[in-house]
Amino acid sequence: MNALWPVVGMVGGGQLARMTQPAATALGVRLAVLAASERESAAQVVRDPVVADEKALADLMTFAKGCDVLTFDHEHVPPEHLRAMEAAGVVVRPGSEALLHAQDKGVMRERLTAIGIPCPEHRIVVDADDVAAFLGEHGGRAVLKTTRGGYDGKGVWLVDTQTPAETVAEPFLAGVPVLAEERVEYARELSALVARSPHGQAVVYPVVESVQRDGICVETVAPAPGMPGPRAVEVQRIALSIAAELGIVGVLAVEMFETTGGEFLVNELAMRPHNTGHWTIDGAVTSQFENHLRAVLDLPLGSPDARAPYTVMVNILGGELPDIYPAYRHVMARDPGLKVHWYGKEVRPGRKVGHVTAYGSDLAELRERAWHAADYIRGDIDE
Amino acid sequence: MNALWPVVGMVGGGQLARMTQPAATALGVRLAVLAASERESAAQVVRDPVVADEKALADLMTFAKGCDVLTFDHEHVPPEHLRAMEAAGVVVRPGSEALLHAQDKGVMRERLTAIGIPCPEHRIVVDADDVAAFLGEHGGRAVLKTTRGGYDGKGVWLVDTQTPAETVAEPFLAGVPVLAEERVEYARELSALVARSPHGQAVVYPVVESVQRDGICVETVAPAPGMPGPRAVEVQRIALSIAAELGIVGVLAVEMFETTGGEFLVNELAMRPHNTGHWTIDGAVTSQFENHLRAVLDLPLGSPDARAPYTVMVNILGGELPDIYPAYRHVMARDPGLKVHWYGKEVRPGRKVGHVTAYGSDLAELRERAWHAADYIRGDIDE
Repeated sequence: MNALWPVVGMVGGGQLARMTQPAATALGVRLAVLAASERESAAQVVRDPVVADEKALADLMTFAKGCDVLTFDHEHVPPEHLRAMEAAGVVVRPGSEALLHAQDKGVMRERLTAIGIPCPEHRIVVDADDVAAFLGEHGGRAVLKTTRGGYDGKGVWLVDTQTPAETVAEPFLAGVPVLAEERVEYARELSALVARSPHGQAVVYPVVESVQRDGICVETVAPAPGMPGPRAVEVQRIALSIAAELGIVGVLAVEMFETTGGEFLVNELAMRPHNTGHWTIDGAVTSQFENHLRAVLDLPLGSPDARAPYTVMVNILGGELPDIYPAYRHVMARDPGLKVHWYGKEVRPGRKVGHVTAYGSDLAELRERAWHAADYIRGDIDE
Repeated sequence: MNALWPVVGMVGGGQLARMTQPAATALGVRLAVLAASERESAAQVVRDPVVADEKALADLMTFAKGCDVLTFDHEHVPPEHLRAMEAAGVVVRPGSEALLHAQDKGVMRERLTAIGIPCPEHRIVVDADDVAAFLGEHGGRAVLKTTRGGYDGKGVWLVDTQTPAETVAEPFLAGVPVLAEERVEYARELSALVARSPHGQAVVYPVVESVQRDGICVETVAPAPGMPGPRAVEVQRIALSIAAELGIVGVLAVEMFETTGGEFLVNELAMRPHNTGHWTIDGAVTSQFENHLRAVLDLPLGSPDARAPYTVMVNILGGELPDIYPAYRHVMARDPGLKVHWYGKEVRPGRKVGHVTAYGSDLAELRERAWHAADYIRGDIDE
């Protein structure tokens, strides 16, 4: 439908779509964005953003008409709309069947278990009594998750035998099935990123260690320190086999626990560029955003190799000050080698408004540089 | 005039403005573009491009109202309009007085000579007899240049005592003063890039060797091979002193000849991101586009350090085939480490439509990889 070069339509106007635009610009393909408002992060940096309702099939269909392929910066498009678009001939990548595993944690757990991928122990629970039974079977501690609609710590509750009844009741209020999972004793969290194309070519990035606070990723280190080669390959193989088994097209992020016993257990899946892959913009030969575009367009994938011994990414979370421009100047003056990435979002406490990246060979120094910038901009330190 | 974060207005919708957009996106500043048409290279990748006449003062003033600072992707805005905007309080960077040295080769030669920068021998010539006299004084060979309006080999004539009279007359037809310069016997061409901010901070990139064909840059190698450190510093000092003496804000590219006798003579100046700096997107810590933005916004400058022992950039010039997408796919499949950059321009023979970059330590291999891609896409080779 479009002359010589393809148009990729991305549903969602957040920072993931925003960071896809530089990759699209270099590749020479047009990125069309469906955003909820003209002020959204990605809507600020693309030509003619489409302001529409991502939950309305008619809006999605109209948007898709101008695109050669449709992809997503989040998992919130209703599965029935994805199936309706596919039935109408829209090229949806990843496809609705694969994407369901990132939209529904119950479906994901069932499928991963069926194909032999190690997961935390889990089952669907139906009420508070059922939660109590699950707690009894798992040492008195568990995680409750709504199977749909959660992100960044939302839709997740840590519970134990002392948790008040009204808290245990909360997950059931959302009206979707609730999953109970064992509380894994983990040494750290890892993430493995794969990009996979429709004809099955796949590349896997170096495994990263990710640090979470309150359910939000705050830091990644690539590659995960102190991980012997064969162990990293084991993690990468898990991610590659999930991508292949589920028929995923685009970027797949597999978040994992490395348990204190040395096991790898899959925690979450995302089928889009992911916070644990932001380091690839500055730290890898091909960014996750470029490889997501290449994958959904069925173009040959770019090298996922790291460009430096270590790359540290730290998220900038908003603090109390709405005007962070003076702090931003200070951070640049202090560290000319730091890479800053801003999302064009209004500052609110705890909100992801940007990230910084530092790369090199001295991990302690890189972490100090990146964290200084994040802490200074949030207002936690003043020198 | 704009809430918290600044807006940079760039006059000109070519590939330089296009490649500035990814840098603006990461920095969180808005790039506004004044383009001649909605289809221009940069107009495709920014929000709400302004289609207007860059030679019309009223259009420029209207555009400037929405911007905190005005800068340029070319030198074609009339100097009198720049002065009028400055008089009206528009922040123009580089300023009109500095920019004149990139707009008028006569002014440039006079000023550089006055401040002691080595240049080829030159003088303004007024007619064919004067050209004959200049040839007599310079071994029978010379270069004629219109002082204003030339670029990419246009506005430049190589002449000698055998050149037909009608060719010698051509430069005078443009109605602007004509500069005659000696034909320098050079070993190679070099380029030094500086970014400089209003308060005088400056950074200088590694010196590159550039290869020209028919007056168009086709390849750069960073750093220039076989150049001892002190020689490179000498070149960098020339560029830094020009930037300081002329009060330049933004990126300055100084194109130079390295003569067979080992001298450095300044050939041309450009005060904007430059083709000889495209390698910095993939090959330097901070790209020339990012440092241009930082400089015009008076933000602290980013590190200009190289990220690899060598970075080779080769321009993709259009060939006879208008549809290069199949070749583009092939090039990506052959070389997953190659970085491709497309300008969204219709393919015409000889037109710059993109560039590729390869980085690493084996210069011969990097050149082979980059040239293969350029030759294949142009259709000069088919495997």
